[in-house]
Amino acid sequence: VSLGDRVVTLFSPQCRQCEHCRSPKTNLCLAIREQQNQGYLPDGTTRLNRDGDPIRHFMGTSTFAQYTVMPEIALAKVSQDAQPDRAALFACGLSTGLGAAINTAKVEPGSTCVVFGAGMVGLGAVAGCRLQGAERIICVDLSEDRLNLASGQGATDTWIGDADTVQKVLDETGGFGADYTFEATGLTSVMRQAVESARMGWGLCTVAGVAGKGETLDVVPRFLITGRRVAGSSFGGVKGRDQVPQLVDRWLAGEIDVEPFVSHKLSLDEVNRGFELMERQDGIRSVIMFD
Amino acid sequence: VSLGDRVVTLFSPQCRQCEHCRSPKTNLCLAIREQQNQGYLPDGTTRLNRDGDPIRHFMGTSTFAQYTVMPEIALAKVSQDAQPDRAALFACGLSTGLGAAINTAKVEPGSTCVVFGAGMVGLGAVAGCRLQGAERIICVDLSEDRLNLASGQGATDTWIGDADTVQKVLDETGGFGADYTFEATGLTSVMRQAVESARMGWGLCTVAGVAGKGETLDVVPRFLITGRRVAGSSFGGVKGRDQVPQLVDRWLAGEIDVEPFVSHKLSLDEVNRGFELMERQDGIRSVIMFD
Repeated sequence: VSLGDRVVTLFSPQCRQCEHCRSPKTNLCLAIREQQNQGYLPDGTTRLNRDGDPIRHFMGTSTFAQYTVMPEIALAKVSQDAQPDRAALFACGLSTGLGAAINTAKVEPGSTCVVFGAGMVGLGAVAGCRLQGAERIICVDLSEDRLNLASGQGATDTWIGDADTVQKVLDETGGFGADYTFEATGLTSVMRQAVESARMGWGLCTVAGVAGKGETLDVVPRFLITGRRVAGSSFGGVKGRDQVPQLVDRWLAGEIDVEPFVSHKLSLDEVNRGFELMERQDGIRSVIMFD
Repeated sequence: VSLGDRVVTLFSPQCRQCEHCRSPKTNLCLAIREQQNQGYLPDGTTRLNRDGDPIRHFMGTSTFAQYTVMPEIALAKVSQDAQPDRAALFACGLSTGLGAAINTAKVEPGSTCVVFGAGMVGLGAVAGCRLQGAERIICVDLSEDRLNLASGQGATDTWIGDADTVQKVLDETGGFGADYTFEATGLTSVMRQAVESARMGWGLCTVAGVAGKGETLDVVPRFLITGRRVAGSSFGGVKGRDQVPQLVDRWLAGEIDVEPFVSHKLSLDEVNRGFELMERQDGIRSVIMFD
């Protein structure tokens, strides 16, 4: 990258040299994993401090800041036409959802899909299913507001979720279940619904949400034996430097509408208000910080 | 089929007309599922009786018998060269294991595989991994005798399983896990080991064992998010009428050695002794009844 380039920061880098980067099967670059997990830059240092006391980097990006120091392998160079406050959406949730449908599940045209959760990841998954040519996209959430956003991204059906959601999916699919289901809430009880809503014979449940520590997804093996599969998706299987620019181009080409995701504009000083808005679920997860 | 044909009975039929038979994605024929689950022939009748009292059919085959009545869609016509007492192995466990590796997991050449369980299904999976060109095939069981059979089918490593098996797999694979793991014990604790032994990034755990009713496989979602997948396999994904004859041909061509699986020969009168032998784990699961 050069001075003046427009970049999206990647918590999931792409060195293009490690065993994982050389494989088409995964996006989990191994290059700086350990240092990053510990909050350090690849050289083992931190460049942040508060009154002289070192502060570690957050997820390799530390982007609640006007400037940051990043390894080059964690920067995706995108089109100069990409407005930064929109492009930033592709740094995490949106790409995670899009990629879950496009890369991990590889949704086939004409499919029936169910997306659990209409936060940034779920909405991205809805858009990804639409881009892949899914025929029916059911989005399940607890908020009417978020479900309205899902309709805007291509959901053909929006449901308020409850304990009967699995049965409802079966009823709507001739008793079989959906070809593809996506879990984007991080709740293991919802993950279980996503597994059990997947179609007998070939249904694939893609887990994109991150569960709490120590929690388990309890799968009744009978659901597996009768042809269901479960896959996980981290950052949507997106190889950041290669594919984030492509996703940004699809946005710029009008294939993805990111405008509804920009619910608030806050200055850096208002960062804590951003968290408050998230906590009371005002807007979806992506509160854009912009100075 | 015609009089004099040599056939293998299929508990998992293939009508070639239902939605599932027409799809390359699944072998779970829908044609007679309901009647068969209830123990009836496709026409809703039973042809068995004891002193005039009707007896239902077992798994659509009822093969503890000299003669049986079967739907044609549940008969795989195999080579006339196939000895029936050997060919019968392909009616269940052996095809299930072979198919788990060949059809469900689609093991790639050069892979590292771990097979949990060295009963008929596990031994079939070992043979399937070998046929697919796996480089390393680790088989885990509690019995040295069964592990010796696994070596004969192509296992490169045989381990007595214990609570440290997952760690051992990680140690032997540079900390990553195996490309493909197979569960063929039906124990949910072992299923969990199979999931956690699968490789970060792309490891696939194929569950072929059948768990007890009400038991759950508890998956830590972190293992999924970091790129592992879980799939189930019923009858190895084998479309019986099309593929059982092909597997039998591979046996006749010398690619699969079934001789070690024929541990005992019993007459029909000795059927209960067969169960006793199974219960005390004398021989593997396949005790051949032959009159």
